[in-house]
Amino acid sequence: MRGKSTNLRIRLPVFLFVAQVTIVAFYAAFVTYDDQADARFQNNRTKPMENAVYKDYPMFTDIQVIIFLGFGCLFAFFRLYGFGGMVFNLLTAAFSIQWAILVQGYFQFSHDGKIHLGVINLIYAEFACAVVLISFGAVLGKTSPLQLLVMALLEVPVFAVTEWAVLKYLKINDSGGSILIHLFACYFGLGVTFVLYRPHLNEGHAKANTSYQSDILSLIGTLFLWVFWPSFNSSLTLKGDDQHRAILHTFIGLSASTLTAFALSAMLNKNGKITISDIQNVTLAGGGDSGGVCGYDDNSCSCICSGAPVEGDPKLHKLQILIPGLQPGLGRTAREQALFQVAAVFSTIGVSTLGGILTGFVLKLP
Amino acid sequence: MRGKSTNLRIRLPVFLFVAQVTIVAFYAAFVTYDDQADARFQNNRTKPMENAVYKDYPMFTDIQVIIFLGFGCLFAFFRLYGFGGMVFNLLTAAFSIQWAILVQGYFQFSHDGKIHLGVINLIYAEFACAVVLISFGAVLGKTSPLQLLVMALLEVPVFAVTEWAVLKYLKINDSGGSILIHLFACYFGLGVTFVLYRPHLNEGHAKANTSYQSDILSLIGTLFLWVFWPSFNSSLTLKGDDQHRAILHTFIGLSASTLTAFALSAMLNKNGKITISDIQNVTLAGGGDSGGVCGYDDNSCSCICSGAPVEGDPKLHKLQILIPGLQPGLGRTAREQALFQVAAVFSTIGVSTLGGILTGFVLKLP
Amino acid sequence: MRGKSTNLRIRLPVFLFVAQVTIVAFYAAFVTYDDQADARFQNNRTKPMENAVYKDYPMFTDIQVIIFLGFGCLFAFFRLYGFGGMVFNLLTAAFSIQWAILVQGYFQFSHDGKIHLGVINLIYAEFACAVVLISFGAVLGKTSPLQLLVMALLEVPVFAVTEWAVLKYLKINDSGGSILIHLFACYFGLGVTFVLYRPHLNEGHAKANTSYQSDILSLIGTLFLWVFWPSFNSSLTLKGDDQHRAILHTFIGLSASTLTAFALSAMLNKNGKITISDIQNVTLAGGGDSGGVCGYDDNSCSCICSGAPVEGDPKLHKLQILIPGLQPGLGRTAREQALFQVAAVFSTIGVSTLGGILTGFVLKLP
Repeated sequence: MRGKSTNLRIRLPVFLFVAQVTIVAFYAAFVTYDDQADARFQNNRTKPMENAVYKDYPMFTDIQVIIFLGFGCLFAFFRLYGFGGMVFNLLTAAFSIQWAILVQGYFQFSHDGKIHLGVINLIYAEFACAVVLISFGAVLGKTSPLQLLVMALLEVPVFAVTEWAVLKYLKINDSGGSILIHLFACYFGLGVTFVLYRPHLNEGHAKANTSYQSDILSLIGTLFLWVFWPSFNSSLTLKGDDQHRAILHTFIGLSASTLTAFALSAMLNKNGKITISDIQNVTLAGGGDSGGVCGYDDNSCSCICSGAPVEGDPKLHKLQILIPGLQPGLGRTAREQALFQVAAVFSTIGVSTLGGILTGFVLKLP
Repeated sequence: MRGKSTNLRIRLPVFLFVAQVTIVAFYAAFVTYDDQADARFQNNRTKPMENAVYKDYPMFTDIQVIIFLGFGCLFAFFRLYGFGGMVFNLLTAAFSIQWAILVQGYFQFSHDGKIHLGVINLIYAEFACAVVLISFGAVLGKTSPLQLLVMALLEVPVFAVTEWAVLKYLKINDSGGSILIHLFACYFGLGVTFVLYRPHLNEGHAKANTSYQSDILSLIGTLFLWVFWPSFNSSLTLKGDDQHRAILHTFIGLSASTLTAFALSAMLNKNGKITISDIQNVTLAGGGDSGGVCGYDDNSCSCICSGAPVEGDPKLHKLQILIPGLQPGLGRTAREQALFQVAAVFSTIGVSTLGGILTGFVLKLP
Repeated sequence: MRGKSTNLRIRLPVFLFVAQVTIVAFYAAFVTYDDQADARFQNNRTKPMENAVYKDYPMFTDIQVIIFLGFGCLFAFFRLYGFGGMVFNLLTAAFSIQWAILVQGYFQFSHDGKIHLGVINLIYAEFACAVVLISFGAVLGKTSPLQLLVMALLEVPVFAVTEWAVLKYLKINDSGGSILIHLFACYFGLGVTFVLYRPHLNEGHAKANTSYQSDILSLIGTLFLWVFWPSFNSSLTLKGDDQHRAILHTFIGLSASTLTAFALSAMLNKNGKITISDIQNVTLAGGGDSGGVCGYDDNSCSCICSGAPVEGDPKLHKLQILIPGLQPGLGRTAREQALFQVAAVFSTIGVSTLGGILTGFVLKLP
């Protein structure tokens, strides 16, 4: 008990102060505005309302709600942890986003020795943050806040490199980031738990009980995700009709999988009672997200079982086949595209699992 | 008990699977993109940022919050039902929206043998869904999830036909859908409860108790509706200054009726205590919504009493008279317009009551 | 007890009816649409999508969430008061906004004998409402609903005059209203409590206990503020790259101060436990808001201590220095600008403290 208290009173503040000072120093040295945010790039003919901020900001606020309120309420699902889940979600997210802006900036948004910052970078950074939070779900209730932060510290750069390599060299069609984000988060979390919890898989879950109240909070969290999922899934697709279709597909796929989830839940439970975690898992899976799956289950192995097939987005793809007129849209044949997607899937699984395992060993250090 | 369990384990999944498979089949056969979502209609001169998705999507996300979080929390107002109210709200909404896209599509958005789909259709479908959810409030706590779905299955097409007929032949000025939506939902719910609960009006309300906690949730639901009500009310009005005025009227009407509600509630209660259900009912009524009224009261007869006068939107209309410059806006004299509105009110009441009564008989089938 | 009951049953409704009737009369006599909302100013060449409503309304809905859900949940932080905090927040806000539209309209938006109304006025009015709600936090749990309304009645015009004078004559650069709003609200609340509670500072705080449940609500409120703070802070800045930068600064400042808050909270608590009120205070302070500070503390003196330095927005300004390219942007030298800002700070403090003290005496009247 004393050890834990010391840990929080000394190590956590030290980590946070060092991290924040370092981040501020990096911002001072390497970050500047992008063309859309920099006053020097505006002139008499610039139309203020055509600034990119008006294309990106509405999507950004929707994703803000997903990250801070959606995941926040979702992580209140452990009875004794509810409050903590929400609070540490805030801490981890605030850290991950700042850190991701720098790391992604270095790989994807830097030229002339500077990282160029606009609202679009915040969206990218919140995607990286979502990855951390999904993995977070796999270890919540079993780790200290400090361990969560160290995990974020390591996961963000591994993810950023994977994202950069996959987008640059494989050029996959990954609207909503279903491949990158969900696969990566799932296998990374799995890697971490594999190292941390192998010897005593069924111990130490004292906090893993839920109550009526935490269930309500967790359901509200799911609803926040449900409502804004089309924004999340479409925020980085091409503006115009592409984004229009991405919104339609996400919404219809989500609605369809919600019905299926209710059917399965009612059918598979002994007394026909619908359980909320079933609804959450399958519902969110249908929207292209296996995050929920990793998030709720004590045993993150179910993450593979239910998560992996989801990554192919069967329901969404079915709908895409059903509604004619949709094409991969990247100038490749559908077959070529499929091969690249498979390559992306396997390399993402490999890198994230390895990254997770190594992170697990780091977290085991005293 | 066993019967209920069987009902949920067998009938509910069967209904859901059949419904979802049928809906997917219909989408595959009859749904395509509208011009704004179809890649084939874009060319070099198409400006992506002028796509209709950017006009409609912000309103759509606001309405999403109203439907899933607003009504969801609102229906948590029964103590023993809170969780269920929220969950079945999700189920009913996810079903109603998919179903409404097809039915409204058939009547209003089809040509060349196809239903043409864009985000604007999702908004129309969420309006139909709101109708179902308001009626849902009248029967909540007294019906099984399966009965709720059957009600939605029947109410959506009756509403869609009424909507199509009223908009096409009577061309009423119904911004916010105050006439159509609220009248229809109110009288339909009344019809259903009239058939289902006549013989034993005061029995079986075991679940109709509220607790402090469910009151809080229900208040949060009301606040979600309050906050986004101007979006709901203005989402289908003409873009530009018409929409601007619709937003102003809704907001000011809502604020004014909120004050009046507090005054009445404090005055009419024995010990001057303000009761939350008063606030909810009158507050929402002022925004052009009697939904709340149907939603909370055990005895849905109060729905007529308080709902009906509301439909004429006295407070809103008063304000419209007060602020000069507002005109009916459809090229009729104010008197002609008034006659058409009256015709629309009575035909809507007739059709919805009849539809509700018939639906009630269907729900009584074993 | 009887006195309190009479007070609520008679005085509160009388106040509300008189207020609402007066407000409606003023609207009828003096309010008209602004150019963007008035049909007479539109012609064939008017492009509907260029209406100002599309620039302002998205920011307005975000601020709606802050006012009604954010502050509403935040004021649920007293255990026995939770529900009441949320309800009276709604009442006070609905009154303050209507009242502020008139008062600010008279000073800032009137010509030709009329107040010209558009969505932009609603944003200004919600800023005035935010001022009232922040002061509200300083007296919550110690005042009756009627006293809260009388406070709003008096605070709105004092604020509107200060705002008009500062913006017109000192022309300060006050994006996010950090100087005006937070300073004013803080010192006004302090003035009121100074008069009302001096003789018995440590009595009558029976309601000032918090529970687990009210903590959760209050945290959710904080998260609503967190998520939409960039909208609040940037809603009245110049459209285009200025607004883009305001969003970036607010978001990054908020994230940075959140990390610092966690560090301080963990370090300063005896057993390393992170307390939620620390997080709320410092977190929100970082976003340019000392509202939270006034809001939570029983002893509003802490409002000065923590609030005052915040007003200079040290963290935000630091970041503004760190990220090169940011300039005051009003055509003055940085030094001149600084002098005007200092003048604005001192005159705001003077007027608001005096206003608060006088309001305190009015509230003491029987």
